[in-house]
Order: sequence, then C-alpha cells, then structure tokens
Amino acid sequence: MQTPTAAMLVIGDEILSGRTRDSNMHHLAGALTNHGISLREARMISDDHEIIKTHVQALSATYTHVFTSGGIGPTHDDITADAVADAMGAAIAVRDDARAILQAHYDARGMELNAARLRMARIPEGAHLIENPISAAPGFTIGNVHVMAGVPRIFEAMLAGLLPTLAGGAQMLSQSLRVARGEGDIAGPLGDLATAHPEVSIGSYPFEENGAHGSNVVVRSTDGPAIDAVISELARLFPRIDG
Amino acid sequence: MQTPTAAMLVIGDEILSGRTRDSNMHHLAGALTNHGISLREARMISDDHEIIKTHVQALSATYTHVFTSGGIGPTHDDITADAVADAMGAAIAVRDDARAILQAHYDARGMELNAARLRMARIPEGAHLIENPISAAPGFTIGNVHVMAGVPRIFEAMLAGLLPTLAGGAQMLSQSLRVARGEGDIAGPLGDLATAHPEVSIGSYPFEENGAHGSNVVVRSTDGPAIDAVISELARLFPRIDG
Repeated sequence: MQTPTAAMLVIGDEILSGRTRDSNMHHLAGALTNHGISLREARMISDDHEIIKTHVQALSATYTHVFTSGGIGPTHDDITADAVADAMGAAIAVRDDARAILQAHYDARGMELNAARLRMARIPEGAHLIENPISAAPGFTIGNVHVMAGVPRIFEAMLAGLLPTLAGGAQMLSQSLRVARGEGDIAGPLGDLATAHPEVSIGSYPFEENGAHGSNVVVRSTDGPAIDAVISELARLFPRIDG
Repeated sequence: MQTPTAAMLVIGDEILSGRTRDSNMHHLAGALTNHGISLREARMISDDHEIIKTHVQALSATYTHVFTSGGIGPTHDDITADAVADAMGAAIAVRDDARAILQAHYDARGMELNAARLRMARIPEGAHLIENPISAAPGFTIGNVHVMAGVPRIFEAMLAGLLPTLAGGAQMLSQSLRVARGEGDIAGPLGDLATAHPEVSIGSYPFEENGAHGSNVVVRSTDGPAIDAVISELARLFPRIDG
C-alpha cells in the first residue's frame, strides 16, 4: 500500500513570540516515522480563527492526515475547536459524551464544571473523541483532522491512543555511518552514490568533534537490504568513526 | 511605523523524519520579537526543489521578510540556494565575491576548494551576501528572502549580523503573572478582561507545581503602560505566586 502522508499544525502565539519552544512537532515526527506515516510538512501559526481555518482546509485537502496541537483549553484564546469545525463545515456545540467525561472528572475531584471548563466539551458534529488520560478534556478527529492538546505530556498521551487506530504504510528505515571526513571532502563521491542509488535517500549532516570535522551520513528507504548495500559501499569509500 | 512581519522556512528532511530537532525557529522567534519584527508563521518542509520554490513564493508575497534555514552546504542534498533563486526569478552561478571568501578560508587551513565546496559559492544574481563568521560559506539575501545555514550556531551567527540591518517596528513588550488558580477557574474573568482591553493580547498557559494547578498569564502589547494597567487588574482579581 501507498505510505500515508501527514502535515502538522502547531497553533499558538506563544510559539511564534518565542516564549515557548514547541516540542510536539519533533515528538510527532518520530512517532509517525515509526508508524509508517510520512510527515511532509509542519506549520506553526497564531491563535486566529481565519488563519487556523485557512491552513486546516489547505492541509486537509493535500495530505492523508492533519495533526493539530494547541488551543483546546478553557480560556478565551482557546479557539481551535471552533475554527476546525468551521474549516470542515461542521456545527459545533457542547456534546453530551464529552460533557459526561468532564463531569465525572471534576466530580471525582470536588471541582465545579463551570462555564469555562464546559467549553472543553465543545466538539464538532460527527467527530470522534480522542481520549485524554491526563486531564480528561478530550481531543477529536473530524474527517482527516486530528485535534490535540498543546501541553506536551497531554499531546503525547493523546497521540499514543490515536496512532494505533491509523493505518501505517511501509515503514521508513534508516542507518547511519559516522565518517571521519568533513562534508566538503565527501560531497563528490556521496553525490555519485546518491545518483547511482535512487532507491534510497542519502542525507549528510556535519559535526565537529575534538576540533575535527566529520559527517554523519544517513541512508533512508523502506527497503532494508538496499540500505545495507549502500552502507557497505559508504564504509568502503570513507574512513569510519565508531560510536 | 507599521510593525514588519515575517515567516520562517525550515528546510530539511531530517527535521520531518524526527532525526533532528530544529532549534532555529525558536531562536529566530525570540530574536525577531526583541527586534520589533512580528513572526507570523513558520513552515518546516522537505529538501525538494519544487516544494521549496512554492513556499518561498507564497511567503515572500505575503510577509515583509522570509527567513530560511538549511540546505546551503556542499552536498547533493543542499539545494536551497538554487530553489530560492528559481523562486525569485534570478540566475544563479558561482559568484566571484563568494568564491574569494571560500578561497581565503580554505587556503588559510591548507584545504582544497574542491568542486563540492565551490557549490557553496553559488549565489543568485543581485543577492547580498550574509556573513558567516563560523565556517565562511555565506548566506544571502535576495529580495525579501534571507537564506541562512541550518547548523544552529552558524544560523545564529548569521542572524546576529543580519538583524541590525533590518528595520524594526514598535517592540512587542510583555509581562506575566503566575496565578495560583487553574485555567478553568480563571477563564471566565480572564475572558472578560480580554474583551475590556483589546489594546493588549492576553494569553494563559497552565502549569502544575507540587501537585497544584496554576496559570501563567501573559499580557502583550507595544504599549507598556497599557500592560501595567492590565497586570494590576489581574493582581487584584487572582492570588499571585511569586517566583
């Protein structure tokens, strides 16, 4: 089967102002790679209804899946659910199943399910809930858009529940070789190797260690033996650093 | 004057595969906020000529500035300079000024300026060079697009040289107050405060400390006294946590 594709939408002014450093994109990238879904792009955008709507529609039309993080809490700046509903042409209101989850959570803690907290039960018509094992307030899937929390441990817990329900394609495999040569020294033969082996993708990432230049060469493919063959050729071409 | 706007393009398959965690976007976000340039969005995309070209054109047409990171090294997968030149309708070739910089750098180290390294002197016609005080190979500005390296300390050094040459607008200021109440408890009055004070933007970020829920309320504006006034109201409304 074709490898499913994905995009991520990180929503929040605090990311763009530099106040908060996003970690959900990097977490999602690794999890999708392991699951056989190809993350093609990520966008970080502000808490603005029309902006969210525009990007959700563009990405939803282009990729198999769209994953969002941020903006589903109880405060006035949490507008993601309404904007995604609008983007997908769905009505949105407090839904009984989500309200029941929140009611049970706050009852158990002797806390009030007030109007602000009840906003977190606003779920688009036709959406499936995504479980939140940390703080109860659910995410949701509508169409091919998966809406999750911004707080990293809640995002990660939601994703851990969601991902096994999504079909994965052939898993992207990779091997790397640390080479005791700077990129400028290996670039020529590396380019020839890449041309000769279009069945793999070869990336090169420079590093410096004890004042010496080295390159980490990464070979990626869904075809394990093809990777092995290219790694063997690399090991013949360049002196290797272990570790 | 109007506050200039910006977008960032983080270029590299290694970011999307989860192999590498980008740090340039967070660094740029903080630096632009301090400089009075408003970062409106960031996109992370793969090393693909047509994809880079499409996004550069879209962002360049929308924002005052576009900053890119990644893909300007000597290897076959470093295709950013050519893709940006194509996007901006400029010819690209090895340029004498960039070649002279590289020649001096490698001569001083007894290293050869071979064909691969010479690729880093490919600069679009009409572009201005951006100095690279770390490893010599320059970035460049063409039109409103600033093309810089992906290696974080090189990106940061290039930006440090570039940013003082760009006009900044009114600087976005912020103050925050740590409140000893969860978001669900403060959301109602906070929403009212936000409605009453459209001259500031109020964000709220939950945290947990010693098992208790708190909220970090951040007030942003270019108007310092307006922030002071709202922070005073917040301090009257909610119990504060110091530190």
